[in-house]
Amino acid sequence: MKIYTKKGDTGETSLFGGQRVSKSSKRIDAYGTVDELNSILGMVISFGVTKEGAEWLKTVQQQLFVLGADLATPASRKVRIDRISEEEVSYLEEAIDEMDESLEQLKNFILPGGAQAGATLHFARTVCRRAERTTVQTRHEEEISEEAIRYLNRLSDFLFVLARYENLKAGTEEQTWMPSK
Amino acid sequence: MKIYTKKGDTGETSLFGGQRVSKSSKRIDAYGTVDELNSILGMVISFGVTKEGAEWLKTVQQQLFVLGADLATPASRKVRIDRISEEEVSYLEEAIDEMDESLEQLKNFILPGGAQAGATLHFARTVCRRAERTTVQTRHEEEISEEAIRYLNRLSDFLFVLARYENLKAGTEEQTWMPSK
Amino acid sequence: MKIYTKKGDTGETSLFGGQRVSKSSKRIDAYGTVDELNSILGMVISFGVTKEGAEWLKTVQQQLFVLGADLATPASRKVRIDRISEEEVSYLEEAIDEMDESLEQLKNFILPGGAQAGATLHFARTVCRRAERTTVQTRHEEEISEEAIRYLNRLSDFLFVLARYENLKAGTEEQTWMPSK
Ligand code: B12
Ligand code: B12
Ligand code: B12
Ligand SMILES: C[C@H]1O[C@@H](n2cnc3c(N)ncnc32)[C@H](O)[C@@H]1O
Ligand SMILES: C[C@H]1O[C@@H](n2cnc3c(N)ncnc32)[C@H](O)[C@@H]1O
Ligand SMILES: C[C@H]1O[C@@H](n2cnc3c(N)ncnc32)[C@H](O)[C@@H]1O
Ligand SMILES: [Mg+2]
Ligand SMILES: [Mg+2]
Ligand SMILES: [Mg+2]
Repeated sequence: MKIYTKKGDTGETSLFGGQRVSKSSKRIDAYGTVDELNSILGMVISFGVTKEGAEWLKTVQQQLFVLGADLATPASRKVRIDRISEEEVSYLEEAIDEMDESLEQLKNFILPGGAQAGATLHFARTVCRRAERTTVQTRHEEEISEEAIRYLNRLSDFLFVLARYENLKAGTEEQTWMPSK
Repeated sequence: MKIYTKKGDTGETSLFGGQRVSKSSKRIDAYGTVDELNSILGMVISFGVTKEGAEWLKTVQQQLFVLGADLATPASRKVRIDRISEEEVSYLEEAIDEMDESLEQLKNFILPGGAQAGATLHFARTVCRRAERTTVQTRHEEEISEEAIRYLNRLSDFLFVLARYENLKAGTEEQTWMPSK
Repeated sequence: MKIYTKKGDTGETSLFGGQRVSKSSKRIDAYGTVDELNSILGMVISFGVTKEGAEWLKTVQQQLFVLGADLATPASRKVRIDRISEEEVSYLEEAIDEMDESLEQLKNFILPGGAQAGATLHFARTVCRRAERTTVQTRHEEEISEEAIRYLNRLSDFLFVLARYENLKAGTEEQTWMPSK
């Protein structure tokens, strides 16, 4: 089977289960943005991270495929699929708590940046938040679980803490933003 | 002539041919996203790709300027410009078929990642799909050719295959996603 | 205080001043995209830039936090905050004029790319333009200053010129696009 099936050449495509929708529909935008985020995590790993960082990130990449399948499958569909649950959210919280032990408490915003992996993790964080925005928007029209929203909300905090953690291990210094008024 | 003309300081800008539109209009979003994709291809090349990869990517960059001009010029406009045609779509299909000969057939999704160029090609693939979504959305309101949509659809498959091809040549291993249910 | 407050778990969040809004609201999209742009500037710096380039970019990062706070604070709010003004716009114009002295005048589009930092600056330029589009869109519904729009308009030109400047200093060659008709 060729990778290009030409089935999407007129601007429509299929959800999991077969339903045809426009490529401009909200749901497609939601899992398309989750795919974008997943690919940025691939970039982060390619720039070099700690052993524990790589392990967390690979697990998150797998979880994002579960989220992708979840968002691609309307609740009404009778197909049995694995959906995002409290388990994936707890995984992130535990990783955050573990990293937090090595990190100084913040009292200000920090400039996004640092080493290549850390800087790209900040970028991933902001794309995660964009994925959260499109998923919240989809939820105004379609049935999407609260766990999916919660997972994306926690994931952006995980990515923020991991950016700080990787930058600490890489020996770069944090710079803060101070409001002038 | 200065690069900053200040003509866009109030939130309006010009299409090719001169028509003034809001920067928030769909058409601007479509070719703005094509420009974003083009710049990511520039990043890919900067990370180092094979000789044949570089040649394909440079050609695609040129084609994206044709697509940009196409999207920036309303069909009603009497200006003569080069538009995206079946020729550019065939170019991509031939490149895909050529690369496919070196690649193993997939039976599962693969985690986006690999070497720096390969990982960034996955990212480009997802931004290409975002460009496709905004172009499809624009087409609900404006006259846009089916060739433009077809080109973007094929381009994301080309970028997927090229990501795999570059990663193969760089000697990185593919990791798959297996659904648990 | 934990980084994850769980206050945003249902898809709503707070503006500066406390007002609760949906994460899918335009205003959140505007400053979320400014945050995305800021993080890409962090990536640019991580790839290595000239001393003067680093200084300009750090200043712009600080200015983007002023812009972020500006966009996050409704005009009606009685909180006193620093907002984007003509000063930040002039800063960019002066930097552009200074760099322009070393650069050849363009008569054509150039392919986005070059060295890693230069290529990523082109990417930043296109995301700046996306931030401009979402901010213009927000302005159709909410009170947003003309200075904020003007700043983003000038910033994308600044990033274009800085991309060329850094590529010149890195010794890479520019490639142009020539329309065939
Ligand atoms: C707008 C906003 C943003 C915007 C824009 C900010 C800007 N100026 O550009 C953006 C999108 C960038 C943002 C990002 C984040 N934010 Co924010 N943000 C806010 C908000 C609504 C207003 C902040 C602001 O701009 N104030 C205007 C200035 C003039 O006044 P200020 O309040 O004195 O600002 C200072 C403190 O608010 C802040 N600060 C104080 N303590 C802490 C602790 C942490 C961990 C952080 C990150 C900041 C922070 O530092 C500012 C000065 O540098 C506040 C909530 C609120 N209503 O106050 C949350 C808030 C500060 N953000 C928060 C968080 C968690 C984040 C992110 C980590 C989220 C993420 N996962 O990406 C990132 C961090 C980014 C970074 N580089 O450090 C939390 C901090 C929780 C805590 N105390 O531990 C808050 C309190 C919201 C909440 N959950 O309740 N944010
Ligand atoms: C939703 C979806 C996506 C989503 C989300 C997936 C997720 N779970 O996160 C995203 C946006 C990520 C995506 C991306 C792509 N997808 Co897709 N996707 C689908 C869709 C609609 C459902 C898949 C799914 O999640 N199923 C849920 C799980 C629980 O069940 P499953 O079906 O058993 O899943 C397995 C197979 O479907 C799949 N698989 C089997 N054979 C092949 C062959 C290829 C080439 C690929 C990529 C996958 C694949 O692997 C899954 C397990 O790893 C299917 C079409 C369909 N209706 O089935 C297309 C489909 C699998 N996708 C396809 C393609 C081509 C792609 C992309 C290459 C497109 C692109 N150019 O970017 C990428 C590949 C990404 C990657 N990293 O490998 C094609 C594969 C055609 C083929 N057999 O050669 C399909 C069949 C659609 C089609 N054109 O008809 N996709
Ligand atoms: C559509 C458009 C775009 C689109 C799509 C272009 C495409 N084909 O893919 C995108 C979004 C990519 C774009 C980007 C930019 N653009 Co533009 N764009 C236009 C527009 C509306 C039409 C251009 C076009 O495609 N014409 C179709 C082809 C077939 O015909 P052409 O006109 O003969 O095209 C040639 C010239 O227009 C152009 N050119 C001539 N002199 C100069 C000088 C500069 C500095 C540049 C960048 C281009 C340029 O080179 C083309 C051939 O390579 C024109 C304004 C207009 N109405 O003409 C502005 C215009 C050419 N753009 C302009 C600018 C400043 C830019 C950016 C620097 C903005 C930014 N900060 O990102 C970038 C540069 C990108 C790059 N890689 O070089 C300015 C140039 C001002 C000047 N002479 O100094 C113009 C004139 C708009 C204006 N402000 O008045 N743009
Ligand atoms: C830290 C601050 O970021 C804003 N915020 C919360 N969620 C998002 C999101 N998905 N995208 C952009 N901004 C967001 C809120 O204003 C919060 O208080
Ligand atoms: C591989 C799967 O990706 C989805 N799909 C098809 N086109 C796009 C796009 N432009 N953006 C996001 N997702 C898309 C469809 O569901 C398809 O089956
Ligand atoms: C250079 C050309 O880019 C277009 N243009 C102007 N502002 C934006 C933006 N924010 N995003 C995308 N395209 C834009 C106009 O057509 C302008 O003439
Ligand atoms: Mg949050
Ligand atoms: Mg497709
Ligand atoms: Mg402009």
